[in-house]
Amino acid sequence: MDLQVAIDRVTLDKAIDLAKQLDTQVDVIEFGTSLIKDYGLEQIHAQLPKLQHAKLLLDLKTIDEGEYEFDKGFATGDILTAMGAASADTLTKVYALSQSRGKQLFIDMMEITADKTAQIVNHPAAIYGIHHAKDSKAGFDAAATVAAFHKDYPMVQHISVAGGIDLAMAQKLATQGIAESVIVGSAIVKTADPVAAAQKFMEVMHK
Amino acid sequence: MDLQVAIDRVTLDKAIDLAKQLDTQVDVIEFGTSLIKDYGLEQIHAQLPKLQHAKLLLDLKTIDEGEYEFDKGFATGDILTAMGAASADTLTKVYALSQSRGKQLFIDMMEITADKTAQIVNHPAAIYGIHHAKDSKAGFDAAATVAAFHKDYPMVQHISVAGGIDLAMAQKLATQGIAESVIVGSAIVKTADPVAAAQKFMEVMHK
Repeated sequence: MDLQVAIDRVTLDKAIDLAKQLDTQVDVIEFGTSLIKDYGLEQIHAQLPKLQHAKLLLDLKTIDEGEYEFDKGFATGDILTAMGAASADTLTKVYALSQSRGKQLFIDMMEITADKTAQIVNHPAAIYGIHHAKDSKAGFDAAATVAAFHKDYPMVQHISVAGGIDLAMAQKLATQGIAESVIVGSAIVKTADPVAAAQKFMEVMHK
Repeated sequence: MDLQVAIDRVTLDKAIDLAKQLDTQVDVIEFGTSLIKDYGLEQIHAQLPKLQHAKLLLDLKTIDEGEYEFDKGFATGDILTAMGAASADTLTKVYALSQSRGKQLFIDMMEITADKTAQIVNHPAAIYGIHHAKDSKAGFDAAATVAAFHKDYPMVQHISVAGGIDLAMAQKLATQGIAESVIVGSAIVKTADPVAAAQKFMEVMHK
């Protein structure tokens, strides 16, 4: 199982510093929506050195104007996110564009109905992100949610899961063996030593 | 009826030049999502002079992390957008924040079900934006859509409408008298003389 580290709500300088430190330690480095909306893709492109090891995911959260946003985003990122709440037509277009560039679409499944989910699970190379809205107050057991999603949508080959994942949950998800990647934010980047924290996650996930 | 001009998919310099030209001509100037994602709120805040006449709407399309994005956005904008596809909890939070700042929330009603719509029409000071996804291929009669929305949700006091609005449709909407504002993009900003084009829209809307 891959480890994706989400960097969010920090200055661009701090984000770039974290990305450089974590590049060789983790599988995917995510630049969160706040970095894109606060600083913009142009500045991120100009200032972030090309990663040597990790893939770069840009959390664009595209919901409209899919081709415009993905064309811009793939100048910098390897994986771009679109919302499952976008129209099925928008998702089809960004999937096709991602495939044609040899890059990857991540579909954020936040706040969508079962009907809508069934309409959009038809993109075999896309990553489907089971993501818990930070603003929501509901409970969340990541492993149970992954199991339920896999049971309902067995055709989905790439599942990613996010939302308050700690070491114990990362280990549980790795043992479960369904999710392809797990997204960790503050449990790595808000610690005194993010590299050491990332190494601990990699250890428990690859026991 | 108010005229909102959407500026999108241009360089930040061009967007600022258009905003300065149109400030005294129109009611609301919108900086589109592409400007925010390409250049970032920090650069827009630093480079765009305060508008003298028009209100500034920033099309944030917030779907999560509502309080963070709205706190940042209100440093510059008078009106901020959130997606109706966000959780009801996120919308309640950004509405409360907007009210506490004496500013305004615009809820983008793109791609949401009737069930979800019914859950979120409870924010009396919010603007509800009937917006046609640019990627969608379906037809759109703005006046008919406004009439249908008003019939289904008579409690909504502030309706805005967007999507391929030309002079004839702007006049029809003004005569109809339901929508509070109309959003026009390329029919103004992609013309050789955006000021003259905006003046023509204002004329037909205020006959």
